[in-house]
Amino acid sequence: MTADASDIGLGPGEEFDLIRRVAARLGPSARGLGDDCATVPWPGGVLVLSSDMSIEGVHFQREWLQPVEIGWRAAAAAMSDLAAAGAQPIGVLASLGVPRNEGGLTEDIMAGVGEACAAVGAVVLGGDLSRADAITIDVCAVGSADDPVGRGGARPGDSLWLTGQLGGARAALTMWQRHREPEAGARSAFARPEPRVGAGRWLAAHGARAMIDVSDGLAGDVGHIAARSGVRAIVSLDLLPLGPGVDEAAALVGQHPAVFAAAGGEDYQLLVAMPGDFPAAAANTFRAEHELALTEIGRIEQGAGVELLLDGVPQRVAGYDHFG
Amino acid sequence: MTADASDIGLGPGEEFDLIRRVAARLGPSARGLGDDCATVPWPGGVLVLSSDMSIEGVHFQREWLQPVEIGWRAAAAAMSDLAAAGAQPIGVLASLGVPRNEGGLTEDIMAGVGEACAAVGAVVLGGDLSRADAITIDVCAVGSADDPVGRGGARPGDSLWLTGQLGGARAALTMWQRHREPEAGARSAFARPEPRVGAGRWLAAHGARAMIDVSDGLAGDVGHIAARSGVRAIVSLDLLPLGPGVDEAAALVGQHPAVFAAAGGEDYQLLVAMPGDFPAAAANTFRAEHELALTEIGRIEQGAGVELLLDGVPQRVAGYDHFG
Repeated sequence: MTADASDIGLGPGEEFDLIRRVAARLGPSARGLGDDCATVPWPGGVLVLSSDMSIEGVHFQREWLQPVEIGWRAAAAAMSDLAAAGAQPIGVLASLGVPRNEGGLTEDIMAGVGEACAAVGAVVLGGDLSRADAITIDVCAVGSADDPVGRGGARPGDSLWLTGQLGGARAALTMWQRHREPEAGARSAFARPEPRVGAGRWLAAHGARAMIDVSDGLAGDVGHIAARSGVRAIVSLDLLPLGPGVDEAAALVGQHPAVFAAAGGEDYQLLVAMPGDFPAAAANTFRAEHELALTEIGRIEQGAGVELLLDGVPQRVAGYDHFG
Repeated sequence: MTADASDIGLGPGEEFDLIRRVAARLGPSARGLGDDCATVPWPGGVLVLSSDMSIEGVHFQREWLQPVEIGWRAAAAAMSDLAAAGAQPIGVLASLGVPRNEGGLTEDIMAGVGEACAAVGAVVLGGDLSRADAITIDVCAVGSADDPVGRGGARPGDSLWLTGQLGGARAALTMWQRHREPEAGARSAFARPEPRVGAGRWLAAHGARAMIDVSDGLAGDVGHIAARSGVRAIVSLDLLPLGPGVDEAAALVGQHPAVFAAAGGEDYQLLVAMPGDFPAAAANTFRAEHELALTEIGRIEQGAGVELLLDGVPQRVAGYDHFG
């Protein structure tokens, strides 16, 4: 952290202004705020921790999701931050509040937390159960990495790559908000996002300079890498691989599908700056090993800020403020 | 954990039945549920983690507390679990949800989290900020211990000791629920509980066999030690050191002050089983070093369950279900 505690290298935005104010207020009693993950040096590696809170009515509506999916996506969101650090999750602590007299809801949600953990070789280590008027779940994931990848290492000449596809989760949200049922692939992108743990570890081992999970929308998340790294990021939206349901949902809201996808969050794909000489053959190896797309979508230049181009024309794309 | 995942060594109670059902449902995807803390073996020590969720309207009412106190007690509650393991907190992740348009509330609550951390040599490592209809804070504390103290090591012949005083927090609650202002000491016991980190480390280093923080009420928490250790615990309520405001509040609810205190939670004192030969001189050293009472209140015998005696007569004391 720099001498000015509020200069924590986040991109612009009201949500990030609040984090800056908290960091300034906490001063020396805080460390490393504004990162995806907290890191604690430890003998034999670095501890990597992240927490993620989901609240009914803010991050999801109950009628959209099965209880196991509420647990799954909460755990996946926290472990996705670890994936973006190239860390291996060890386990999670899950604090869960549900309304009184909701028989079986706690067990079902926690089962989803357990499934998401099991899928990446982690376990449920503990948590806290409580009453709450709205379903509230906070998952704290802990893992380790030899040398965690942060947001600050991108350099001019690097190339920007994206795992998987974008926009599916926003497509599902768009349909639900119009009281329509999303198609299965879009629904799954929102309800069962996969934390890209293996992909993140592979990318870290192959020279990733800076990495972030796309949870607040590509537009905003690219901005965090640019701000923290002190560079300018250029993204060609034409190159974005679009998730299921994006074309239909984008038409409903009157946006170009790529702009729609770039403004969407919660797909939990990884955005990574790789050295400019990252070879095409290595990208092919990644795709084969992980059965997952890896697409070059932009580059890093000297300067500051983000440029999002569509057919060569700069676009304005709002950040993603969940569905609020 | 035993072969039967639901046999996780908790005392009786509806809240603990729910934890047992969750553990049974999670099966091998969970580890060590039902403890104060999660423990992860790690080179050079054991990682110790605990999380604690506080929700407005469930664990506190907003008019009782200053925002910094909401943050302080949430962080103190999580770090108190680490204290009970004899662990040193390294830092916390704090996830916080507050209603829209509550200017400065987030910063104030997080400042309280930071103050509680600073008081025990820990830092705020990260967290997550969100909107929520009710103030919701979940703190995940991480620390380390060479050899964490659990709940399962009490043996017949051990003596039971308690740090500090009990009942002050319940006395404050009792007054607030009657729309009266608690006296300063009782208010402070609820609003600014001190996690007994130094005390816990000292007791661990001096042979503590089993330790727990009294967060759900002495009656219930003794039961957890008895259940996990496979022993019977005898407590003389006459010996309980009573916190500020207990006499007046106990009179208001028509209970003997010691019974009132034994049913109260959230004082975050430590209850510890020490070997029977733990010397009186050592207890004096503890008191001098920590400026904190350490009182022998009972003993461990062969058998099962808990006996709470008042003037030699067994008492029924309910567990503590917060103010719900």
